[in-house]
Amino acid sequence: MIVAVIHGPNLNLLGVREPEVYGRVTLEEIDRRIAEVAEELGIEVTTCQHNGEGAIIDAVQRAGCEADGIVINPAGYTHTSVAIHDALKAVRIPVIEVHLSNILAREDWRRRSMTALACEGVIGGLGAESYLLAIRGIVALVEAAE
Amino acid sequence: MIVAVIHGPNLNLLGVREPEVYGRVTLEEIDRRIAEVAEELGIEVTTCQHNGEGAIIDAVQRAGCEADGIVINPAGYTHTSVAIHDALKAVRIPVIEVHLSNILAREDWRRRSMTALACEGVIGGLGAESYLLAIRGIVALVEAAE
Amino acid sequence: MIVAVIHGPNLNLLGVREPEVYGRVTLEEIDRRIAEVAEELGIEVTTCQHNGEGAIIDAVQRAGCEADGIVINPAGYTHTSVAIHDALKAVRIPVIEVHLSNILAREDWRRRSMTALACEGVIGGLGAESYLLAIRGIVALVEAAE
Amino acid sequence: MIVAVIHGPNLNLLGVREPEVYGRVTLEEIDRRIAEVAEELGIEVTTCQHNGEGAIIDAVQRAGCEADGIVINPAGYTHTSVAIHDALKAVRIPVIEVHLSNILAREDWRRRSMTALACEGVIGGLGAESYLLAIRGIVALVEAAE
Amino acid sequence: MIVAVIHGPNLNLLGVREPEVYGRVTLEEIDRRIAEVAEELGIEVTTCQHNGEGAIIDAVQRAGCEADGIVINPAGYTHTSVAIHDALKAVRIPVIEVHLSNILAREDWRRRSMTALACEGVIGGLGAESYLLAIRGIVALVEAAE
Amino acid sequence: MIVAVIHGPNLNLLGVREPEVYGRVTLEEIDRRIAEVAEELGIEVTTCQHNGEGAIIDAVQRAGCEADGIVINPAGYTHTSVAIHDALKAVRIPVIEVHLSNILAREDWRRRSMTALACEGVIGGLGAESYLLAIRGIVALVEAAE
Amino acid sequence: MIVAVIHGPNLNLLGVREPEVYGRVTLEEIDRRIAEVAEELGIEVTTCQHNGEGAIIDAVQRAGCEADGIVINPAGYTHTSVAIHDALKAVRIPVIEVHLSNILAREDWRRRSMTALACEGVIGGLGAESYLLAIRGIVALVEAAE
Amino acid sequence: MIVAVIHGPNLNLLGVREPEVYGRVTLEEIDRRIAEVAEELGIEVTTCQHNGEGAIIDAVQRAGCEADGIVINPAGYTHTSVAIHDALKAVRIPVIEVHLSNILAREDWRRRSMTALACEGVIGGLGAESYLLAIRGIVALVEAAE
Amino acid sequence: MIVAVIHGPNLNLLGVREPEVYGRVTLEEIDRRIAEVAEELGIEVTTCQHNGEGAIIDAVQRAGCEADGIVINPAGYTHTSVAIHDALKAVRIPVIEVHLSNILAREDWRRRSMTALACEGVIGGLGAESYLLAIRGIVALVEAAE
Amino acid sequence: MIVAVIHGPNLNLLGVREPEVYGRVTLEEIDRRIAEVAEELGIEVTTCQHNGEGAIIDAVQRAGCEADGIVINPAGYTHTSVAIHDALKAVRIPVIEVHLSNILAREDWRRRSMTALACEGVIGGLGAESYLLAIRGIVALVEAAE
Amino acid sequence: MIVAVIHGPNLNLLGVREPEVYGRVTLEEIDRRIAEVAEELGIEVTTCQHNGEGAIIDAVQRAGCEADGIVINPAGYTHTSVAIHDALKAVRIPVIEVHLSNILAREDWRRRSMTALACEGVIGGLGAESYLLAIRGIVALVEAAE
Amino acid sequence: MIVAVIHGPNLNLLGVREPEVYGRVTLEEIDRRIAEVAEELGIEVTTCQHNGEGAIIDAVQRAGCEADGIVINPAGYTHTSVAIHDALKAVRIPVIEVHLSNILAREDWRRRSMTALACEGVIGGLGAESYLLAIRGIVALVEAAE
Repeated sequence: MIVAVIHGPNLNLLGVREPEVYGRVTLEEIDRRIAEVAEELGIEVTTCQHNGEGAIIDAVQRAGCEADGIVINPAGYTHTSVAIHDALKAVRIPVIEVHLSNILAREDWRRRSMTALACEGVIGGLGAESYLLAIRGIVALVEAAE
Repeated sequence: MIVAVIHGPNLNLLGVREPEVYGRVTLEEIDRRIAEVAEELGIEVTTCQHNGEGAIIDAVQRAGCEADGIVINPAGYTHTSVAIHDALKAVRIPVIEVHLSNILAREDWRRRSMTALACEGVIGGLGAESYLLAIRGIVALVEAAE
Repeated sequence: MIVAVIHGPNLNLLGVREPEVYGRVTLEEIDRRIAEVAEELGIEVTTCQHNGEGAIIDAVQRAGCEADGIVINPAGYTHTSVAIHDALKAVRIPVIEVHLSNILAREDWRRRSMTALACEGVIGGLGAESYLLAIRGIVALVEAAE
Repeated sequence: MIVAVIHGPNLNLLGVREPEVYGRVTLEEIDRRIAEVAEELGIEVTTCQHNGEGAIIDAVQRAGCEADGIVINPAGYTHTSVAIHDALKAVRIPVIEVHLSNILAREDWRRRSMTALACEGVIGGLGAESYLLAIRGIVALVEAAE
Repeated sequence: MIVAVIHGPNLNLLGVREPEVYGRVTLEEIDRRIAEVAEELGIEVTTCQHNGEGAIIDAVQRAGCEADGIVINPAGYTHTSVAIHDALKAVRIPVIEVHLSNILAREDWRRRSMTALACEGVIGGLGAESYLLAIRGIVALVEAAE
Repeated sequence: MIVAVIHGPNLNLLGVREPEVYGRVTLEEIDRRIAEVAEELGIEVTTCQHNGEGAIIDAVQRAGCEADGIVINPAGYTHTSVAIHDALKAVRIPVIEVHLSNILAREDWRRRSMTALACEGVIGGLGAESYLLAIRGIVALVEAAE
Repeated sequence: MIVAVIHGPNLNLLGVREPEVYGRVTLEEIDRRIAEVAEELGIEVTTCQHNGEGAIIDAVQRAGCEADGIVINPAGYTHTSVAIHDALKAVRIPVIEVHLSNILAREDWRRRSMTALACEGVIGGLGAESYLLAIRGIVALVEAAE
Repeated sequence: MIVAVIHGPNLNLLGVREPEVYGRVTLEEIDRRIAEVAEELGIEVTTCQHNGEGAIIDAVQRAGCEADGIVINPAGYTHTSVAIHDALKAVRIPVIEVHLSNILAREDWRRRSMTALACEGVIGGLGAESYLLAIRGIVALVEAAE
Repeated sequence: MIVAVIHGPNLNLLGVREPEVYGRVTLEEIDRRIAEVAEELGIEVTTCQHNGEGAIIDAVQRAGCEADGIVINPAGYTHTSVAIHDALKAVRIPVIEVHLSNILAREDWRRRSMTALACEGVIGGLGAESYLLAIRGIVALVEAAE
Repeated sequence: MIVAVIHGPNLNLLGVREPEVYGRVTLEEIDRRIAEVAEELGIEVTTCQHNGEGAIIDAVQRAGCEADGIVINPAGYTHTSVAIHDALKAVRIPVIEVHLSNILAREDWRRRSMTALACEGVIGGLGAESYLLAIRGIVALVEAAE
Repeated sequence: MIVAVIHGPNLNLLGVREPEVYGRVTLEEIDRRIAEVAEELGIEVTTCQHNGEGAIIDAVQRAGCEADGIVINPAGYTHTSVAIHDALKAVRIPVIEVHLSNILAREDWRRRSMTALACEGVIGGLGAESYLLAIRGIVALVEAAE
Repeated sequence: MIVAVIHGPNLNLLGVREPEVYGRVTLEEIDRRIAEVAEELGIEVTTCQHNGEGAIIDAVQRAGCEADGIVINPAGYTHTSVAIHDALKAVRIPVIEVHLSNILAREDWRRRSMTALACEGVIGGLGAESYLLAIRGIVALVEAAE
């Protein structure tokens, strides 16, 4: 089983950017912990990070061909991107949306998610742990669908 | 470590009620799988289910005294209950909100969560698996806070 | 055929509370007239009144097991209660919502009904007569479904 | 006692138009069943159907002179017609608004009724039965007013 | 100079309909007083009343060919009719909108006027006097434009 | 009979300010034409102009003691001033609101009038003529009330 | 194949009414060019124009019986008419909505279309050409459905 | 004179729950200070606290029979409870709504009060002192009504 | 201790203006009763009344220098005045907002208070008594802050 | 004459992505049919597809230099992209917006088009045929402008 | 060249009022720095500060006669004052609006500016520096217009 | 000191695109004048222009490492881009947002700025001069922070 993890815009700054909101863990550290869980679960995980909306759509389309499930943190594109939403809807594999912070408890304009409309599940507010739980969740979804 | 799992209104009907939305798993089955994960993680879990808003507030207040973390599915009260929100805010232990379905992708009036404003994290859309991931998540939160 | 009539909050005050809006008929009088219609139609009717949202959900769930149809006046819970809505949706028998006054012609916040989203029909504005027509209506619905 | 039944736009297509929403009963069939109930109750009923807003206003004004009560299904004009609302308000006899489907549970723009603001009661969601109950209801209203 | 006065829906009921809002003057009385003012000002006035939106559009188009100015009371169509708005905009003569009551101080949905967007002026709240002032106003507008 | 005419903020600039919207007539010219109509009708008219909201409230209160009717153009305060609204409501003489331009056909935020809620009538869109018609209208109102 | 072209209110004024928005082509000219395209495509076209909402509903219902497709320009009724929407939904043949101007780029209240909810396609902004393309489009739709 | 003081949900946690918002005074302390003021004013006061909406409605109905006035802090139910609003409206004795914090200056969803629509007065923002002033206020209201 | 009482626009008309809403007590009477309470509590009170927004801001700024607390009834400026809000926020002494009527239960546009955002507490609906309780409240606030 | 056809995000997936909404035709097939129409009309057509918003802006700017008209399907960027809107407005050649589905009849957030504000015309709901009609339409626009 | 600088309500408190938002610089200090820049640029600057809306309108009108440009900080009147907006629009010289704080990033009700609708430019968020840049900007505007 | 100037989408078309809104100055001309001011102030300035949202985020992140302040004109991304907002918030150097036109006085959807939420200041409406003032402003901010 292959799971594609797609990190959205500005996540490359993790650990530096507003640590009081997003914590001090870096993206490398998160990817390392994802790899550990992947190994524990016996699955393969690919990860990438993009700042551009088009690049994320490309990544989603690629994952639609090569992977069995997607874990995506659309970050700043979460709230408005119809185009990423359409890409997620177009791929026919399960998707879980992940957020480091609890978007339902932040600024008004962060509380709605356009992309989540095209996802099976959403996990947010648990920092790096959000990703690890999402990996476990996507595995459960893929296995249930088999 | 003790985690209190609080099931909200109508969840006692699980498996019967709109299975095309909520699946065919019963609440007993969910509680059984929660118990398995609890055993795997070496923690204690208590569970209860209430239809009344006041009864849920009582349960939250009780958990605030006796438990180290709360996993709550406020169900129909999620979207409007200021009183449960206030109770969750009053207890000083971490809380994760859980939903069987992906509330961000359902009817407009199910997309916002009043109670999530008082939670650390939210997990939704993964059926019974939502609860299991929440148990893992709350353990991570409690351990991180220690 | 068994029809469960569920009266919501404050209806026990009927005849006393704002008679210029709700009329001078008491709940006992309404229940008596319901019984007359029930006898005329040859059906069995049970009635109950509750002030608590949780108690009404319990009553709906019970009716789902024991009755063939529900006539409910959710009163003050009509406009906001997702939880009663969910309970009504969960039971698999026809439901008619009843209002003494014409809620579509009152204060703005009384004009929309959350609970009606889960009902087959709505009858309002005809005072006690609303209940009697609803009894006739639910019988027609149950017979049509047989 | 004379009751005027006024059918609004497109109701002449009943039985043909979207039967999954409006059922397979034709307008003739409904008028026949109304006549039966009228006979049972010993009252006179007149019926008409119009597609034009002006023609419906004419019919309402005429009923205001010749009838003791009105049962009206304003159909597509329900949601926006201030002019029919004004006509209903101008006639000084009781009016019950009728809908075949449960407008409170349909598209957002069908959930509010401009015309119901000028009616004593509203009955909806019970198909042809809605009309029959409305006939009974208007008789009760007229008798109560005598 | 010819001025066309167009009365909208339900104004034929004037003096009967809700006299506490619209006063006890009949439409005939208003037309008679309009005729007096017309004679005083030395102009010709035509009047008509229609309940149908299409008939009013026809009247507006006709006035556009035969008259020098229009005084219109669109009544219930004031608030929503784009089609009458378009007709008023299409004729190239001055138009004054008239209301018996002060629509800016009534129900919310009566406070905005779609048709006034296509008028030079609006006069409301002065009962029959509104029409008489409008006749004077339209004469002033037509003379100013010459 | 005494009628108080109150001109609101910036009207002292009339003829200079945005003549494409407000015309080229000056306030002095308007006051002169008002005086002519007053003489024709055999009444007394006082006029004043103020830029300050408090000064206008003072003028309204003074008119409430000394005059039989008020013609007011609240200009920029029309749309938001609860305080002028309250002053107009407090005086117990008829009030007509006047506008040079047709506020119902201008920017969104000019289309609603807070002050008109406290007026008997509103006349707008006819330039200086608006004032002259309002003088005639207020005389009719005062005479009707006698 | 028969295609019914239905022109809505005020379109009989085309070429006269606001030519800066709607152009200088008359309705006769449009009908002539439609006839040319019809001949080119080997189909039969009927055309009619109505100012009344009810008359348009009649025309739609008639077309539902006699034609294979409808091209309709609901003009001023586009934005609010639930009744025409219902008529279009009731007929079981393909419908294309046409606008001379680009309604998506005009006043706010012209940007939404109630009637388009019941159409297969929408073509706007191309003047008379909108109709000609719609004729081609409806032929394609009818042929595809065969 | 008897005054019923009704404390709403979570107020039993006072002194513990978010002391930076609600202060460090406990509910017992507030009840003790209320008793002192009651003694000073020579009246009888009863107090109760409930987490459930139904229980609060019961308390309001009971107070309607046994007391001369009500001081209520509906807490989390303030903003949405139509049912408590209806109960307060049904009892025919004066009611003052009390809040520890200034709800008009907090989160948007705390700024409106459904229950206050059924109260004579509202006092908020003064901590425990809010209750003491409300006791004085209700005494003044009851005496004024005698 | 010095408390500044600031009365807003139109309050000089008290007893005359809409007595069914604001009662028959005059401002002098209220000031006299305030003086009595001040004497009872052993504090000094200054009072003033202004119709102008600027004059009220001046009064607030002056009170900020000379008094220990402010009791203000911003009347018509309550709902929109950012400038008075800013003045209240700028002075560093406690402020209680007072209303004669219960603004939370009146017209929609009276239900929100811009000025209350800058106050410690709000008291409304108790007529002249509102002021007397506010004096007691401000004393408690000032003493608590010492 | 050169026409630039610009396909927006995810259109490369056509025929695979949600075929129940977008049909089974692939982008290659559409481009082939466009080429046929182009040949029939004797014009040159260039086509491109981009997932990125910036890439589409580049393509629009390039077309502004090299082509005589643009046919664009902004897909997911339709509803929110001010930047593409600005690019379309900046180029001084006619533009027609195209949609495969009828965006006016889909989810609320798909019903408004930001980009259409900068277009001459819009064609939607006719699948691949939308493009073919747009090619004909743009040719008519360009010829009319010459 | 003469530039009029107009300071709005509460700016006389600068340096005292909420220094964490507005900084510790006083209005005198700002005026001194403005004078320095004026000298550097060889222009004349007049400054004034007013708390009253009417006084600010007077100042704007005066500047319209005597100055070549206006720099205004409408402070609390920025967000709602149609009357100051109208005054700014009436004067025919360039105007730049200035804010000490970044109003686009503050409370919702501070993010929109009514007065800016009548200004050439807006500068905000740079404290006293905002004024200095505005002086430079207005000079550039006046010179460009010459 | 190094200041990074980032030009957003379509600004490369400056001087060509809608000169009636944006003026006739080209981007090269603006960059040249920026260089002059930079030289005058003795600082270093880098400039870049990007059409893609991702490319702008990259530029912001780069500036966060290499520069002391940012002057950004996000153009079409101003109003919706959460992702650029997040990037600006993540870099820990001062940022001034610049607009050629006065966005507060243009179309509704251009009046709010998402990106300005993450900026110290905003300057708009002064054409190329906006940039020059922003350079001066950012220098003042950086120096003040040292």
